[in-house]
Order: sequence, then C-alpha cells, then structure tokens
Amino acid sequence: MPYAKPIEYADASPEARAVFDDIMTVRKVDTVNNFWKSLANDPATMRRTWESIKEIMAPGALDPVTKELIYIAVSVTNGCEYCIASHTAAAANKGMTPEMFAEMMAVTGMANETNRLVTGYRVALDESLR
Amino acid sequence: MPYAKPIEYADASPEARAVFDDIMTVRKVDTVNNFWKSLANDPATMRRTWESIKEIMAPGALDPVTKELIYIAVSVTNGCEYCIASHTAAAANKGMTPEMFAEMMAVTGMANETNRLVTGYRVALDESLR
Amino acid sequence: MPYAKPIEYADASPEARAVFDDIMTVRKVDTVNNFWKSLANDPATMRRTWESIKEIMAPGALDPVTKELIYIAVSVTNGCEYCIASHTAAAANKGMTPEMFAEMMAVTGMANETNRLVTGYRVALDESLR
Amino acid sequence: MPYAKPIEYADASPEARAVFDDIMTVRKVDTVNNFWKSLANDPATMRRTWESIKEIMAPGALDPVTKELIYIAVSVTNGCEYCIASHTAAAANKGMTPEMFAEMMAVTGMANETNRLVTGYRVALDESLR
Amino acid sequence: MPYAKPIEYADASPEARAVFDDIMTVRKVDTVNNFWKSLANDPATMRRTWESIKEIMAPGALDPVTKELIYIAVSVTNGCEYCIASHTAAAANKGMTPEMFAEMMAVTGMANETNRLVTGYRVALDESLR
Amino acid sequence: MPYAKPIEYADASPEARAVFDDIMTVRKVDTVNNFWKSLANDPATMRRTWESIKEIMAPGALDPVTKELIYIAVSVTNGCEYCIASHTAAAANKGMTPEMFAEMMAVTGMANETNRLVTGYRVALDESLR
Repeated sequence: MPYAKPIEYADASPEARAVFDDIMTVRKVDTVNNFWKSLANDPATMRRTWESIKEIMAPGALDPVTKELIYIAVSVTNGCEYCIASHTAAAANKGMTPEMFAEMMAVTGMANETNRLVTGYRVALDESLR
Repeated sequence: MPYAKPIEYADASPEARAVFDDIMTVRKVDTVNNFWKSLANDPATMRRTWESIKEIMAPGALDPVTKELIYIAVSVTNGCEYCIASHTAAAANKGMTPEMFAEMMAVTGMANETNRLVTGYRVALDESLR
Repeated sequence: MPYAKPIEYADASPEARAVFDDIMTVRKVDTVNNFWKSLANDPATMRRTWESIKEIMAPGALDPVTKELIYIAVSVTNGCEYCIASHTAAAANKGMTPEMFAEMMAVTGMANETNRLVTGYRVALDESLR
Repeated sequence: MPYAKPIEYADASPEARAVFDDIMTVRKVDTVNNFWKSLANDPATMRRTWESIKEIMAPGALDPVTKELIYIAVSVTNGCEYCIASHTAAAANKGMTPEMFAEMMAVTGMANETNRLVTGYRVALDESLR
Repeated sequence: MPYAKPIEYADASPEARAVFDDIMTVRKVDTVNNFWKSLANDPATMRRTWESIKEIMAPGALDPVTKELIYIAVSVTNGCEYCIASHTAAAANKGMTPEMFAEMMAVTGMANETNRLVTGYRVALDESLR
Repeated sequence: MPYAKPIEYADASPEARAVFDDIMTVRKVDTVNNFWKSLANDPATMRRTWESIKEIMAPGALDPVTKELIYIAVSVTNGCEYCIASHTAAAANKGMTPEMFAEMMAVTGMANETNRLVTGYRVALDESLR
C-alpha cells in the first residue's frame, strides 16, 4: 500500500523534514513516531496537523493532562487503537495516573451508554436547556 | 410514541419514584429533567443508570468539571444533542468557563481529525507503543 | 434543498411509481412515508432498497419483531432519529411490547458502554475466541 | 501499557476477586476472559459492569439469544472486534444458529445503509410518526 | 447556552473580525453563515479552521465538486445535519448536479452497509492487500 | 468462529458459485477476495451485495475513481481497515494517484473535525439553508 508507506527522515521532502525537525526540537526527542512518518506522504497536511497540535495541546485554561484525557476519550469512542496507544503513553508522560485513566474510562463508558439511551427514548430538550 | 413518553412523578411506579426522590435530594433540586422522566418507563434501567452516574461522576482522581468535559467530548463525538446541552449546563454549574469549553472543543475536533488520518493511512503501531 | 425534496406519487417517474405501488400492495396501505418519497429522487436506489428490505425483513430464522428490534438498536447506535421513529412504529405494529422495547434499549446502552471499555483497555482477544 | 495490563486472579484485589468468583459461579466456568482481567484494574467499574450484565442479559421479555443478537449488532456497528468475537461465541452457546447470525448481519448491514440514506436525504419526520 | 451563542460581526473580537473579513473577501459574499459566528467564540480555532478549509478545499489533484462530495459523504456518515445542508448548498453552487448527489448517496449508503458486513464477518485481510 | 469462516469456490453452494463466477467474469480475475468468501456463508446477501455493487460503482454521473474515493472516505470514517485496504487497492487500479489519495484524506480529516465543531457548538441552521 504505497499511499500509506511511512517515509523516514532521510527520504523526506524538505517541507516534511522541517516538520520532523520541529517535532524533535519541541518534544526533545531524536525520532518521531509512525504517524508523522505516514503524514510525510502529504507534507502540507503534516505541517498543518503539527501546527494545530502544538497550538491546541499547549497549556491554557485546561492543563495538558486534561487535554490528553479528552483526546483519549474521543479516540476510544471512535475506536482508533493507534491513537489510544500513543495518547495514553503521552498522557502518562505528562502525569496521568492509573486512577485518572480508570476514571476517564468509566466516564467514557457511561457517556456512550447514556448517549444511546437518550437517543433511543427520543428525549425532548427541557425548556431549561434551550 | 408511547415507548418514550416521559412519565411525571405523580404517574411513576414506586421504584421510579424512589429514584426521582434520590435525584432531587442529592442534587438539591425540586424537579428532574426529561431524561429521567423517559427512563421512568424502565425503572430498573433508571435506577441502574442513576446509581452509576452518582458513583462515576463523583470527585475522585479527576475533579467533577474534568469529568463533565470528558462527557461532553464523547457526546459531541456521538452527536447526541440533548446530552451536549444537558452536560454543558451541568459543567457550567460546576465551574466550567467558556475558555475551558472552547479548549475542550478544540481538542475534540482535532482528535476526530487525527483519528481518521491515522486510520486512513493505516499507521502501524510503533514498537515503543506495544 | 432540491436534492432531497420528497416526490409525491403524482409527480414520480414510472420506475418510482412502480415501487410506490408495490410498497402499498405489500404493506396494504394507501400511502408511503417520507423516506420513500425522498428516495423517489433516485428510482434505482429506491427500487434496490425496497427489494432488499422486502427480502431481509421477511420472516426467516428470525421473526419480524426480532428483526425490527435489531434495526432499532443499530439506528439508536447511529443516532438516526427518523429511523428510530419509523421502525419503533413498525415494530409496535408487528407485536413489540413496551417491555421488549425497554429490554432492547438496555442491551443497546450496555453494549455501547462495554464496546468502549474493551476498546480503551485494549483487551487482547482470548485464545479461546480466535 | 500498564493501564490495560490484564490482572490474573492471584494478583487481583479482594473486590476484584469477588467479581471473578461470582462470574465463575454464575457461568459455571473455571476462568474468566480477558475483558474481566482488564477491568480488574478498576474494581468499581468491574463490579458495576458485571452487576449490570447479569441483570440486563437475563431472560425477560426477550430471550437470551435475542439479547445477544442485539449486542452483536451494536458491536458490529461500533466496530468492536473483541466484542463481536466474544458475544458471537456466547450467542452460539445459547443457541444461535448460523442462519440466525446471517439474518442478524443482513438486518445490521441494511440498517446501516438506510440510516445514512435517511440522513443524507434529510427526510422529514412524517406526521404519523410524531 | 452562552458557550455556543453566535457572535455577529459588530460584536466580534479583532482576531475574529479579520477572519470574517477574509471569508467575505474570498467567497465574494457580504455575510458568513452561523458556523463561523459560533466559532467566533474561539478566535484561534476560527482562524485555524478557516485557514485549513481554504487550503484543503482549493482545486488540486481533485476538483472542488469532488471534494464537496467527499465532505458530504463523511457528514452523512457522522450524522451532522448542519454540515450536510451547508455543504450540499456549497456543492450545488460549484456545479454538483442532482444525479451526482444521488450517486454519491448510493455509494455512501452501500459503503456503510459493506463496512458492517466486513466487520461482522471478521473478514481477514487478503495476502494481496497487505 | 464458524459463522465467518471463508468458503472456497469448491465448497460453495450453487447460488454462491454463480456469484463467484460473475465476479470473476466481470472483473476479469481468477479468484475473489476474502470478503466474498465470507459472504458465501449467506448466498442471498452475497448475491444482493454483488448486484448492488455492480450497479452502484459503475460509471455514471460520477466516474469510478470518484466513487472509490467516496467509498474510502466513508470506510475511514467508520474505521473499517479491511474496506480501506481493499478499496484503496481498487482505486489505485482505476487510476487514483497518491496526490488524489492525500487530498481525499485531508478532506476526510477536516470534515470529521468540523462535523464535531458544528455539533458541539450546536450551530443553528441558517435561514438560507432551510
């Protein structure tokens, strides 16, 4: 499947290499994971994605661990195994404890259940929520 | 659609009324919203859901606002409008600011995007993530 | 939105009219609901969908009520409000009781919850399930 | 990934062991599958999930095979491979035939197709379905 | 729900106004639709989203109508009614005919059906597709 | 898992064999992939699916490559790995270039992101889109 074949740094285009370099500098690592190597097939999307991630995942009104927990909850709901694995690792690096992971999972499971109960019972929006 | 017709307190079964009472006591309110009135059609599910919510949404390793943010992120990903409305209101009551809402939404949007990029490019799990 | 404007019998193409006629004959009704009027914009898809539904929803190893329950469970999981409304009505016509609806919903809610728990905990397939 | 590492009976907490014991007693088996070993990381969620499953999947207005078929249909729609494998095995144990599985799959496939046709054509709810 | 209250041009922050201005210039319109007014609550996300859309939806290896068709197919699969309405209008403006819409919908419906058949039957990847 | 065990031509029922034969004739190949071997467990669904695919994926108002791109975008959104692999291969055979794949993926990623932004901000339908 040539369209998704990961591209190593040595084989990347200059635009993709610039993103590789910035990821390694910002994250203080000497390699990038397969997600970036795959996106190197489309340097414009790679660059746009990296710029967005840097901006969105930075500390703000929410701390980085909370942002990672939200990221994992979405990835679990969408069934993206790679995303769950990589962001669980990232979250752990940023301070997520096993208890935090377990509570995030419990909320995620329950939200998925009640989302469907609401939908199936066709619950009308309360006046107070309009 | 009689299966989903909300049931008011006066018309509820004793088992459903007990749940109504507990919700009003715990939340210090004098009514419950439509979700619970709909679930009153199935008192066993109503009770089970309420017991789970009380346990799961309580403060723990994660604070209540963080739990609500995760709940909203899942509900947005599943497209449950009622759930988004009711839990956004709940989150605001517990201290969520507009900035926190906006950052949660930005993470949720980006996670949905990158989940699909990972899936479409068929990114293989890095050795370091196994 | 002209692409989705429902087409009434009087304005339908001959191929679409033939499907209208067959639906009314098979179901012993004198009108069809909006789904079919919308599909009349694409008579080939309308015909194909009707032929499939006739074949798939007919009694077989599963009875018609069980098939409708499965249909609703899927529609709830996908969040299709129209589909839930129309198939809940169809199921009731075929003998679904409120208790059956409630139990289907409880299973649907729980399956959505456990699906996500399995995914988030990255549960490996047991040897016995391979 | 320590957060999801399955926990064997010998290493489980007393609360988790109590759930292991009840599962083995109720199901008349001498081991539990990986789902439960993973949930043993969060004994409260493990207990809550097991209590719900016992209650929801028990015979009622719907027989156990019908409940498993609904469970599989939801799991297929959500793309949870482990869930499909484990509940297909459970369903077979409870009496599901290959013909029943095939018909459930045909309904699930068609519901997923028509859910999207309804959504894309923006079909308005018929007066008779309100 | 203050978090989602649309913000009109007159009330927008300077950063949001700059995006409003650019949208109106590029699209040669004198107003923007509600999506942008809602995003004006979070000018950083508004700007990022608009920059991405300009770049991604521009003509390239795929023409603009094809890109809109893909956008609609995804929105249908996710059940986003607003997105379907706005991008169907955009696609029509760019030259999508009713026949193109109907064929896109037929493919979308069938892909959703076969996606589930593949998943439920747990089809193993052919050697030739690895 | 006998329900999903692929059935080879030599072991297939006459109805399934007729579909095998037609696929091999139409596609000018001497084997079929695992999807069809799995569906051979349910010859009626196999035949119906093949007839639909032949009709829907044929050239029309949209060319075959555009149809495959839409198919992949849906499969990515649903997370169906097998479907992505098989239709990416099919699309490449019909003329999809790596640039077309990359642009389809960029649109798919962005649509998934904006679908959720619209949903979470509860954007009201503009008058002009009704």
